[in-house]
Amino acid sequence: MKKTLSVLASAVLCSCAFAAAQPLPAPSRSGGMPLQQALNVRKTVRSYKADMLTDRQISDLLWSANGVNREDGKRTAPSAVNRKEINLYYLTAKGAFAYDPDKNQVTKVSGEDLRKWAGRFEAPVYVVLSADLKRAASRHYAVMDTGYVSQNIYLHCASAGLGTCAIGSFGRIKGSQQGKLLHDKLGMPETEEILLTHSVGIPAGE
Amino acid sequence: MKKTLSVLASAVLCSCAFAAAQPLPAPSRSGGMPLQQALNVRKTVRSYKADMLTDRQISDLLWSANGVNREDGKRTAPSAVNRKEINLYYLTAKGAFAYDPDKNQVTKVSGEDLRKWAGRFEAPVYVVLSADLKRAASRHYAVMDTGYVSQNIYLHCASAGLGTCAIGSFGRIKGSQQGKLLHDKLGMPETEEILLTHSVGIPAGE
Repeated sequence: MKKTLSVLASAVLCSCAFAAAQPLPAPSRSGGMPLQQALNVRKTVRSYKADMLTDRQISDLLWSANGVNREDGKRTAPSAVNRKEINLYYLTAKGAFAYDPDKNQVTKVSGEDLRKWAGRFEAPVYVVLSADLKRAASRHYAVMDTGYVSQNIYLHCASAGLGTCAIGSFGRIKGSQQGKLLHDKLGMPETEEILLTHSVGIPAGE
Repeated sequence: MKKTLSVLASAVLCSCAFAAAQPLPAPSRSGGMPLQQALNVRKTVRSYKADMLTDRQISDLLWSANGVNREDGKRTAPSAVNRKEINLYYLTAKGAFAYDPDKNQVTKVSGEDLRKWAGRFEAPVYVVLSADLKRAASRHYAVMDTGYVSQNIYLHCASAGLGTCAIGSFGRIKGSQQGKLLHDKLGMPETEEILLTHSVGIPAGE
């Protein structure tokens, strides 16, 4: 009986560890680099320090990418016909987390370090951009809407002293085994497609 | 003889009026709204005052969208495999102009007011985003790269007190007669495709 309870408790704990939503710190809705300067220094960075980002940095990154910026739920990035079909996940050494922009929280969807499936560069964090193709106006617009979110990541990183690189070749678009693995390990349905990943970290040598 | 010369002179003048490149004022590479604030106020604006933008505003808009921000010719917006396949044009009551980011200049490609073919809203300026599909890594990436440039336009407009709306339905993507007309009137080859237009102006009621 005691053992049964213990097993049950473990199962519940385990389930909670993966399912419980974790609130993120409130994102920075002011401050940062003046926009024209951020545009001027925007670039791709492919080499990072090992330092993990803080929760606040993660929150700012995800909100800047595709967070809610208006009371009606609209976002920092537009989406065709307001379908809001782009989903974000982030991957660290500690696991994979799904972002809920409406509640500004994340939910752990895997305890595995999935970064090796997401890109070519050693980065403390990867952001995964996927499209819910059931919700999207079309695949064409889902691809375009991915570009909007990705540019927000580039500009936020430029402004916040972070480096990033968008990587398209690891999605399922080329039917790569790597992309399929990441898709499945993140628990995505068939109708959700990874369109881009972003390696993110503090630039090495800075 | 005098008449012939006059006709010839007119033809030369006319040709020059359409072919001569016009330098743009140097774009603002600093200043503007702090990035997080620009992300916070970013939105779609569909109603504009009739006021024409100044040359400086046009220059800042085009440079922010897809201008050169580094000595090696790289841009404010990334492009897949650095193909730089997105071209910009802008349309006003006075005609249509092609943007050359490398030289920061524009060339008049039509003396006609083409705005009615570019979108649904009465705006003093339309920006046309097209992709050179011969140069692009793929059509998929050209569509994604269009999103990057479009988000730069949204954020610059938010920062600079302008309003804008991205319009996808007027491109050739749906084979619309309107899109085909705009494509042909801008003198694009078959391998160049309009993927998006942006109405731009000072927001009405502000």
